[in-house]
Amino acid sequence: MLTGAGDARYMAAALELSQRGRGRTAANPNVGCLIVKHGVILGRGWTQPGGRPHAEEMALAQAGASAKGADIYVTMEPCAHQSTRGPTCSLAIIEARPSRVIVATLDADERTRRRGIDRLGDAGIPVSVGIREREARRAMAGFLCRLEKGRPFVTLKLALSLDGCIAIADGSSQWITGDRARAHAHLERARNDAILVGAGTARADRPGLDVRLDGLADRSPQPVVLGSDKELPAHWLQIDRTEAIAELPDVNWLLVEGGARTAASFLQAGLVDRLLLYRAPIIIGGGLPGVADIGLEKLGAAHGQWRRVDQRALGQDMLEIYDRAA
Amino acid sequence: MLTGAGDARYMAAALELSQRGRGRTAANPNVGCLIVKHGVILGRGWTQPGGRPHAEEMALAQAGASAKGADIYVTMEPCAHQSTRGPTCSLAIIEARPSRVIVATLDADERTRRRGIDRLGDAGIPVSVGIREREARRAMAGFLCRLEKGRPFVTLKLALSLDGCIAIADGSSQWITGDRARAHAHLERARNDAILVGAGTARADRPGLDVRLDGLADRSPQPVVLGSDKELPAHWLQIDRTEAIAELPDVNWLLVEGGARTAASFLQAGLVDRLLLYRAPIIIGGGLPGVADIGLEKLGAAHGQWRRVDQRALGQDMLEIYDRAA
Repeated sequence: MLTGAGDARYMAAALELSQRGRGRTAANPNVGCLIVKHGVILGRGWTQPGGRPHAEEMALAQAGASAKGADIYVTMEPCAHQSTRGPTCSLAIIEARPSRVIVATLDADERTRRRGIDRLGDAGIPVSVGIREREARRAMAGFLCRLEKGRPFVTLKLALSLDGCIAIADGSSQWITGDRARAHAHLERARNDAILVGAGTARADRPGLDVRLDGLADRSPQPVVLGSDKELPAHWLQIDRTEAIAELPDVNWLLVEGGARTAASFLQAGLVDRLLLYRAPIIIGGGLPGVADIGLEKLGAAHGQWRRVDQRALGQDMLEIYDRAA
Repeated sequence: MLTGAGDARYMAAALELSQRGRGRTAANPNVGCLIVKHGVILGRGWTQPGGRPHAEEMALAQAGASAKGADIYVTMEPCAHQSTRGPTCSLAIIEARPSRVIVATLDADERTRRRGIDRLGDAGIPVSVGIREREARRAMAGFLCRLEKGRPFVTLKLALSLDGCIAIADGSSQWITGDRARAHAHLERARNDAILVGAGTARADRPGLDVRLDGLADRSPQPVVLGSDKELPAHWLQIDRTEAIAELPDVNWLLVEGGARTAASFLQAGLVDRLLLYRAPIIIGGGLPGVADIGLEKLGAAHGQWRRVDQRALGQDMLEIYDRAA
């Protein structure tokens, strides 16, 4: 089956939709779905909080009978397994009789991988796989990382001065960045299932790791502390080593917010997939560095690990995003 | 006299020409000059190494008799004083009988300020002053800073990891940045009259502070060390405190290259006008910070001092330029 520029555009829109569920769909992936016929969008879906309804279910409900003969764009292979929680998407799609199904990437779960598209193909529905696959893997990286590496996708956030400090010498860090950067950082919290700080940061700042944005308070992620914290609030989780993030229940996306030793321990363990750097146009000089010792012995070993994927101005500050290169 | 968009464009070109002399014209300003008639560029000039010929002199020599009736764009008011080293530009312009003279900014030297344009006006030549003045002040900031503040314009260069380190813990700094960033840093050396490092850096690295770019070796700036250095090479200069940069002979533009304590002492003294940050996509963690203690007691005091004026990718690295906001 041929796919063209129109398919790439519609898949890009489905990928945008997939981001609406980010941080709230675990253990399910945050999928996006778009149903299109003759250039008219008949349905738009994204995985709902808690993982149900699925994106396809939501989009099919909108399209109704008009889905017959339409093109269905879905960012991940429709599910093939039975669940007590809702319909099996591959079956629901077959019932809707679309003319094509366009899939960005296969399911990472080996138990169901290819079963969804095989089932569609067996039903005579043409299926295309792989369009915008790289972007799709990035858009649903949390789920894919958990399935493929057995742990959440880890974003390390740092709010830095130009000279790489997160606080002045006495520990004061309010504020390095301005209003817009801080609002963006809160939005980023809403895009993660859990948020982690070190025990030192938890003791010093006793941070309320919630989303302080109007209308998004209910999207606050699960707080987690690394290390020993005797005054741990009741709803917090606690882990004693970085690798234990693998055991956090229902976490696809994990945001690590500091401090310097926690950042270093995740970096040293190779457990950071993305750097989110908020950078203020200030020089602190002799302040507290953002990253403690990571055991680097040769400068050459630091190179080639990070790739700049985005940057933007947030007021006076800059946001830079680096993804692990490998 | 009215000036229009064409004038702004021609002045922008004259400002580009002014940059060709940067770092080699002190104690003269690095001026640019463009002579235009009926849309044809008849002469292009910039202050030559050592300060003579002046930009106007060079451009007038190219234009010859055709300068009569032309527009002369010059980034700084033509000189009015007599010199044994060459002609007085305001008189040379009057002789050439242009139809207009367009000036970006006045001379900062109070002894000659306004005399150049007054002389042109007295001779019946219309003069416009102030077009692209802000850019002109930036393009010739070295000379203007020396005249107005009694010291060179100081650029602080730092080559940093994402977490603000200039070396790993053992001091190794070769290399933080890649080939293209390092080549750019050498080009920046050629754009400064002098280059300064601290005594510690001089001892540790014994840096050859020359321009290591093919064809530009003769543009190496005057090396200066801050502090005591018993093995000072013969052609180096030495100062014992940051304020002594005011006494450096014939330096409009000064590049400060480190290390961390030297950077801090210039920052703390309020003697840095521009930050040139080369940033590599690496994390060092627990390395040597780029800026030592600057005596900052309140985080709020760090804000509002720097304004981002440029940024670009240099291979994998980023160059960011911040100018002092005030």
